[in-house]
Amino acid sequence: MPEKLRVGFIGLGLMGRPMSLNLLKAGFPLIVWNRTQSKADSVVKAGAMLGRSPANVATRSDVVITMVSDSPDVEQVVLGSGGVPTGVIDGAQRGSVVVDMSTISPAVTRSIAQRLAEKGVAMLDAPVSGGTVGAQNATLSIMVGGDPEVLQRCMPVFQALGQRVTHCGPNGMGQVTKLVNQIIVTGTLSAVCEGLLFGAKAGADLQAVQRAVSGGAANSWQLENLGPRILSGDFAPGFMVKLLQKDLRLVDEAATEMGLPLFTTLIAQQVLRVAANLGLSDEGTQAYIKALEAMAGVQARTPSS
Amino acid sequence: MPEKLRVGFIGLGLMGRPMSLNLLKAGFPLIVWNRTQSKADSVVKAGAMLGRSPANVATRSDVVITMVSDSPDVEQVVLGSGGVPTGVIDGAQRGSVVVDMSTISPAVTRSIAQRLAEKGVAMLDAPVSGGTVGAQNATLSIMVGGDPEVLQRCMPVFQALGQRVTHCGPNGMGQVTKLVNQIIVTGTLSAVCEGLLFGAKAGADLQAVQRAVSGGAANSWQLENLGPRILSGDFAPGFMVKLLQKDLRLVDEAATEMGLPLFTTLIAQQVLRVAANLGLSDEGTQAYIKALEAMAGVQARTPSS
Repeated sequence: MPEKLRVGFIGLGLMGRPMSLNLLKAGFPLIVWNRTQSKADSVVKAGAMLGRSPANVATRSDVVITMVSDSPDVEQVVLGSGGVPTGVIDGAQRGSVVVDMSTISPAVTRSIAQRLAEKGVAMLDAPVSGGTVGAQNATLSIMVGGDPEVLQRCMPVFQALGQRVTHCGPNGMGQVTKLVNQIIVTGTLSAVCEGLLFGAKAGADLQAVQRAVSGGAANSWQLENLGPRILSGDFAPGFMVKLLQKDLRLVDEAATEMGLPLFTTLIAQQVLRVAANLGLSDEGTQAYIKALEAMAGVQARTPSS
Repeated sequence: MPEKLRVGFIGLGLMGRPMSLNLLKAGFPLIVWNRTQSKADSVVKAGAMLGRSPANVATRSDVVITMVSDSPDVEQVVLGSGGVPTGVIDGAQRGSVVVDMSTISPAVTRSIAQRLAEKGVAMLDAPVSGGTVGAQNATLSIMVGGDPEVLQRCMPVFQALGQRVTHCGPNGMGQVTKLVNQIIVTGTLSAVCEGLLFGAKAGADLQAVQRAVSGGAANSWQLENLGPRILSGDFAPGFMVKLLQKDLRLVDEAATEMGLPLFTTLIAQQVLRVAANLGLSDEGTQAYIKALEAMAGVQARTPSS
């Protein structure tokens, strides 16, 4: 039996921390790094080694996972810029693999993959859907762009992190697929909120409405999961407003570059800006309805919530 | 055991015909009327009696169902106007029930219910979701507004027509709930189409995209049922573009009356107008993507389809 892949993990935030713990549970030798070192403590206590820098992590790993916030963060930890003196690229061995699981720009992804390829390092873009619950329970859906042979080599790692692993095409296509996912999530959320608000304004019993419409062609994950939270006034984040805004900025950038008109998606983006302006950036995306409520002068839930 | 309710049925179109056949199958004495009499032939052959007018149908029935296209059609057959000399109201017995299963204006519904109440005739608004397939298989979801006691009396009739029967409130609230349903259907459809088109324009393998995104928070009835039809170029109607346009006109009227801003719903309505202008009125609502394709200069499906 071949030895376990040595895994490096950079970015131990709300997603990265539970994911790295799952890799330890699955028995992978793990070396971690985080910009704020204190966030690595609990993972090191659970059995991980602590790297001195992204480059040091890369030197000691077969597969380096990055799970950070945005395109510039990935550029910094992989290419070594913006206050990160030595990036993954400065330490990575020829034949090793960088797996970026952040949600970032497809174009930036392709450019980083190109830079790594020049050093003989492979890259996969492998953004995920499923949120912190999916990260904890290892039930993430993983959308992979890059060489299918490299994906096969990394499969044991992915299997420790998620349930559904889909190869979507060459580098960048994992990110494109994730952005498709976010476009559909946003529009469906908007549809659910506008429907509920229409019912509220017309004086309907929203519990009955939710029951009636979830039985057919109007049903969705958003309606089933966020509808009841909206009606009970639960705005705790499964996925935060500000993170959906970041993803829609990536959608908007890519659509602008491609000359693609996106009618309802970009209107929904404006409503999310209203939500942010109301101070709801750190609430769950279901707070979308609070922005609509503020603009409509009606509440789609009990006033106490 | 009490005798079966005598049922009248007015409007034997794509929905009304299979519904009336299900009532015959369930053993209800049935009397029918249709503006174009030839459309009643097959139902009469199956065992229904033919009424001479809406008033005549009402005189001979305990429950009169109307299943026509739009608000003016219901006003004509129930109140007797616009070329229909004698309406249901002119023949209905005190204590009988009119059940309007068309999708029409909540305000018109309340006004008709008021007129009927003055004659001692009860009314339920009971629009349905589930399309022609649901009508054939008696799996419709039925959204009912009106007196709950009257709903209970009519329950055997509803059970012969559908699966989920939800009491949504007083008269008009069945229609309000149906419009909520159509708002959510429209926005979700738009989300799916914009997502797939983004993927297509970015060069993604849409089969892989559909597989990846249907596993999580982006999933919906629209994505699962219409996504594959779009990708295979199947635009046969489950529900026609022109009927969704009619329902959105009702949404728009009610929202205007209530002063309710509906951001993405009414943008999607404009895209459906583009679809109509492209000659797609009689295609299924998934033809929404053809309007987006025409405006984006890209196809989200194989060119042959």
